[in-house]
Amino acid sequence: MLRALATTGLEPDRAALCARLIADASRDGVASHGLNLVPRLVAMIRSGVVDVHARPVKVAAHGALERWDGRSGVGTLNAYACMEAAIALARAHGIGCVALANTNHWMRGGTYGWQAAEAGVIGLCWTNTLPNLPPWGAATPRVGNNPLVIAVPRGQSGGAHVVLDMAMSQFSYGALASYRMRHEPLPVPGGFDSAGELTTDPAAIEASKRPLPIGFWKGSGLALMLDMMAALLSGGRATHEIPAHPEQESGLSQVFIAADATTLSGWAEGSRTIDAIVEDLQARYPGERTLATRRQNMEEGVPVEPSIFEQVCSL
Amino acid sequence: MLRALATTGLEPDRAALCARLIADASRDGVASHGLNLVPRLVAMIRSGVVDVHARPVKVAAHGALERWDGRSGVGTLNAYACMEAAIALARAHGIGCVALANTNHWMRGGTYGWQAAEAGVIGLCWTNTLPNLPPWGAATPRVGNNPLVIAVPRGQSGGAHVVLDMAMSQFSYGALASYRMRHEPLPVPGGFDSAGELTTDPAAIEASKRPLPIGFWKGSGLALMLDMMAALLSGGRATHEIPAHPEQESGLSQVFIAADATTLSGWAEGSRTIDAIVEDLQARYPGERTLATRRQNMEEGVPVEPSIFEQVCSL
Repeated sequence: MLRALATTGLEPDRAALCARLIADASRDGVASHGLNLVPRLVAMIRSGVVDVHARPVKVAAHGALERWDGRSGVGTLNAYACMEAAIALARAHGIGCVALANTNHWMRGGTYGWQAAEAGVIGLCWTNTLPNLPPWGAATPRVGNNPLVIAVPRGQSGGAHVVLDMAMSQFSYGALASYRMRHEPLPVPGGFDSAGELTTDPAAIEASKRPLPIGFWKGSGLALMLDMMAALLSGGRATHEIPAHPEQESGLSQVFIAADATTLSGWAEGSRTIDAIVEDLQARYPGERTLATRRQNMEEGVPVEPSIFEQVCSL
Repeated sequence: MLRALATTGLEPDRAALCARLIADASRDGVASHGLNLVPRLVAMIRSGVVDVHARPVKVAAHGALERWDGRSGVGTLNAYACMEAAIALARAHGIGCVALANTNHWMRGGTYGWQAAEAGVIGLCWTNTLPNLPPWGAATPRVGNNPLVIAVPRGQSGGAHVVLDMAMSQFSYGALASYRMRHEPLPVPGGFDSAGELTTDPAAIEASKRPLPIGFWKGSGLALMLDMMAALLSGGRATHEIPAHPEQESGLSQVFIAADATTLSGWAEGSRTIDAIVEDLQARYPGERTLATRRQNMEEGVPVEPSIFEQVCSL
């Protein structure tokens, strides 16, 4: 990946960070938003949609609230820089918010949650996307699936942090394709078929382009609010202004919030709180499987899709 | 309501605010979290669970992040005071966060969203609750339905603000009871029956006590994260520490975040952004029906459930 990114003119230190963040996603079991997106990233750099030389800049600030311009740069690097800035604001002000306009696909959203948790702060971030989800009551995609990430630190660096990374659609198009190729029905209804009936048939939803928001009307509303907040705070584009083709998807708006509870009380109290919640839950918590996969992949090697691996090697 | 609250010893100015906030909920069509909760509130004051004389106090602060103690006071008044404090922080720092421990039921969550929007700021707040929702993969209630409120101001005071007020359960127990009494099935599956099958039969879910989180595993994760953040930031109780009977539900933790986008750019730009999103949506936006109901009820009178009205009159 580093070699592939270097061919685009991305400076060595920035290429190294970018490659590491993408490799971390594959290592953590999210190849769909890691290695598998590298060919598209390189294609978008070569086509001029992503400007490999652009660095994000702060364009406005008021105390703990900042607005940054991503200048059509590399999405992962822009997002990483803005979560770093939000973490710094949280250290200084208890809470900080960086709103980023004119950026590109951030690849794995969880990256920035883990980044916050590793820094010992709560992280809350989201992105808008191209219109890919019909709002509740409509048949055409007018909201984005707007992934939302929430991270709560547990212990200090290297801890078993709790990290939720979820889009507002019940299943992504990638997930629908996976079920279809395995000839499996979805475990729960995932959208409407072309006749407007709820269905567990992934191919029917791919055909109708009517995936379901989580919680039907609720996720539809939540996706809308995330888009409104991102566009309002960043001064950037809302979903309806974003080009609807994935390889043209650009000018995204994102929000990065960090809060440092240790500025109010020490680490010990907070750790006991989160440990007790996890212990009581008696179910899997968000991020638990990520850490198990990470350990396994670091021992046994990170699985790659051979066709994509070859494609990246040849970039 | 004012008379009923006065009988509890609540000071006149605080009783007036409390009665107004509750009346506003009924006026806006949310009697379930307005008038209908008054008998329970008065009962909880009389039983000593809610301390009518307690006022919330700030116990720790670092810049734009504050921790308040609700001292087991009246939930609506505590929440209103904390959103006011968050709004003041947002004016000073761009963004502000007040985390509140030891509080009681905030009744209609949307109240504090409208409060923020009327002040011209983005509001984001949530509460934890008693354990009333089985996490995904479990059969017993171990997470709360943890209502989440997001408000985006539109225009200045009196504007058509966008306000989302949603719990993490697909249907509340109140909603299940309404469908059952009307002999109607739920419009979408709302939980599991006692055999562990998804069902649209409200009575079967009331019996199994297995309502569904929105988006199945996704809302389950989101509810957990909201509880963790509330307990960690406030230093207060997590859901598993909250008494599981509604009339004993106390010691809640809540978070109130406000962000003032006008500190970065003027009103005009933001208003255009939100107007354009609403115009593109071609579907109902959160809060739209609230305003229509409000207008209708202010013209025709606010409907009340007669039995509850009589009960409140006799308190």
